[in-house]
Amino acid sequence: MHSVSEPTLLLNETICQANIERMAHKAATRGLQFKPHMKTHQSAVIGQWLRSYGVTAVTVSSVSMASYFARHDWEDITIAFPCNLRETERINALAEKISLTLLVNRMETADTLQQQLSHQVDVYIELDTGAGRTGLQPSQTSYIIRLINCFKQADKLNWKGFYSHPGHSYTARSEAEIQSIHQTVLTQINRLRSKLGTSHGPFEVCIGDTPCASKGTEFNGIDAISPGNFVFYDLMQVQIGSCAVSDIATAVCCPVVDRYPNRNQLAIYGGAIHFSKEPLSEDDEVHFGLAATKQGHAWNPIDDHTHLTRLSQEHGIVQCSPRSFEQFSVGDTITILPVHSCLTAHLLGRFVSTGGTTIHQAQLKDRI
Amino acid sequence: MHSVSEPTLLLNETICQANIERMAHKAATRGLQFKPHMKTHQSAVIGQWLRSYGVTAVTVSSVSMASYFARHDWEDITIAFPCNLRETERINALAEKISLTLLVNRMETADTLQQQLSHQVDVYIELDTGAGRTGLQPSQTSYIIRLINCFKQADKLNWKGFYSHPGHSYTARSEAEIQSIHQTVLTQINRLRSKLGTSHGPFEVCIGDTPCASKGTEFNGIDAISPGNFVFYDLMQVQIGSCAVSDIATAVCCPVVDRYPNRNQLAIYGGAIHFSKEPLSEDDEVHFGLAATKQGHAWNPIDDHTHLTRLSQEHGIVQCSPRSFEQFSVGDTITILPVHSCLTAHLLGRFVSTGGTTIHQAQLKDRI
Repeated sequence: MHSVSEPTLLLNETICQANIERMAHKAATRGLQFKPHMKTHQSAVIGQWLRSYGVTAVTVSSVSMASYFARHDWEDITIAFPCNLRETERINALAEKISLTLLVNRMETADTLQQQLSHQVDVYIELDTGAGRTGLQPSQTSYIIRLINCFKQADKLNWKGFYSHPGHSYTARSEAEIQSIHQTVLTQINRLRSKLGTSHGPFEVCIGDTPCASKGTEFNGIDAISPGNFVFYDLMQVQIGSCAVSDIATAVCCPVVDRYPNRNQLAIYGGAIHFSKEPLSEDDEVHFGLAATKQGHAWNPIDDHTHLTRLSQEHGIVQCSPRSFEQFSVGDTITILPVHSCLTAHLLGRFVSTGGTTIHQAQLKDRI
Repeated sequence: MHSVSEPTLLLNETICQANIERMAHKAATRGLQFKPHMKTHQSAVIGQWLRSYGVTAVTVSSVSMASYFARHDWEDITIAFPCNLRETERINALAEKISLTLLVNRMETADTLQQQLSHQVDVYIELDTGAGRTGLQPSQTSYIIRLINCFKQADKLNWKGFYSHPGHSYTARSEAEIQSIHQTVLTQINRLRSKLGTSHGPFEVCIGDTPCASKGTEFNGIDAISPGNFVFYDLMQVQIGSCAVSDIATAVCCPVVDRYPNRNQLAIYGGAIHFSKEPLSEDDEVHFGLAATKQGHAWNPIDDHTHLTRLSQEHGIVQCSPRSFEQFSVGDTITILPVHSCLTAHLLGRFVSTGGTTIHQAQLKDRI
């Protein structure tokens, strides 16, 4: 911490490796292919850690991210985002080099890809199993069958199965609620499996959220999982019930720049451009992070009340308890557990690992 | 728009130049020094536009940003952020080259700077005129006088006056409310001026928010203004009452990747990592942007209801009206006016101007 002069993303390598090992082990024991989502860390180095647990296929959320990981020797990449027809040139270039899987949810998209691609891609149909964001309803069987038939007539599109991100698991507030949502996802998928039967040939199903991947106990009808956030976890995942605070692998170390004794507040260098403005509502309070200190190998909250409560572009305000306020002087640093590690990691663009090495993300360079 | 394949920040150069000209003219006619805040655009090119209106001194919010603009030949820079004692080395290096002004609100900070700097800096005391974020209360006269005396004994610290960012003007919802807040700021500052009298020598006062700078009519007791957001404005400033929608100079052009006719929603490539998660509450609705089209030289909302209502990392969901929904097909682009242009510009890192040229920000490089 001595060298920290700007908001700095710390990475606890021990916890991160333990999170990866636990998920890889879970996938293996349940016979699931493990295709982790790379959007959380966006880092070739952490990709290597995943590889050491036997991972050979990964998931990303943009063509740019696919290109980055392809440059780092990943040869089986799923872009878990409705296919963007304005990037067909880059998609084609990728499909020439690697085994690329796209999400194609519409006949028009299939037609355009068939016309514009010169290399074959694999395709998943995305299912909306309750998140209400993107994908077809599993009950839209007739459209799904038409789409499958359309793929079968298109030599550039090899239909592989279904993908779903059950993002509504983020509304859960306990392990039991996660499991209940997970069961409704499985029910919908297996109902669709029954309706399709065997007449369309074998296909696979991949689901992708961290809560269900972390706490789901059975995966009947599922072939692959693609969670992303689990590598780091965060306060949101603790609130959902996916993990314990001691599983959080990243924290942001920030300089303390001013103190306000009459309101027990610290001003820190660490704002919206470092943490993101993702809020967490807890106990009628909204905050953007929780102050913690390293104890043993994990970060422990210094108490339950010392929250990052306000963010401007570069300013952060930490509301302390009277006791925690006394622990910090101007010129010190304070370590904050993030609400949403994916966004915070994206913003900060690099990690300082517990071993002291700096790990860069993607093409992210020095930012001001 | 034909070449847009990823979320792209468009810059309407005509509007931006008009915003700059209006503010420069206002400052000149009121005898105010114009020291614009560069945090909104973070761009040397837009810095040049400001220079062409006679600007010679600028304001930034970090040492990194000061370094960037110093490299682009700005020789008078104020870092409008409570001095970060963990960056004294970089501060010293800057102070060697340019006229640097810091905010110093505490005796301990003054002492440390005096010990650690080898080059003189100018200092402002920051005043909290109602924002409740950082700075001393204008009523803390005795502490302020002690601090001024401390500066006078420190040869590395040249006391220059006071700085305030009246960020509580962001709670205004009309021009009248902005003016009322502006008056309370002037009252506090002039009360402090009276108490200090002439015994501490001449000093200056700089205030920095876009709403008051845009709509304040008189600036009695103020010597300089440092608004930042005004170069672009945004939906938040429209809601506050600082500007009209036709004054907004940036918008984000995003590919449409999927359509949901049963709920009149479009899925777009444009998420939290492009727009930021800064929400705007309007008419009991929370959203992250408003769809618009170019009409004449400005963007006009396509209607009052077509909002970006949901953001994940890369996904955006646009809630359309039945009529606006029919205007967009998969493969089209949609243009969204941002809620908070400072954060959106920071995230996107570069602009495509109406002239077709790409303008980069700071050291920001290609991001995935």
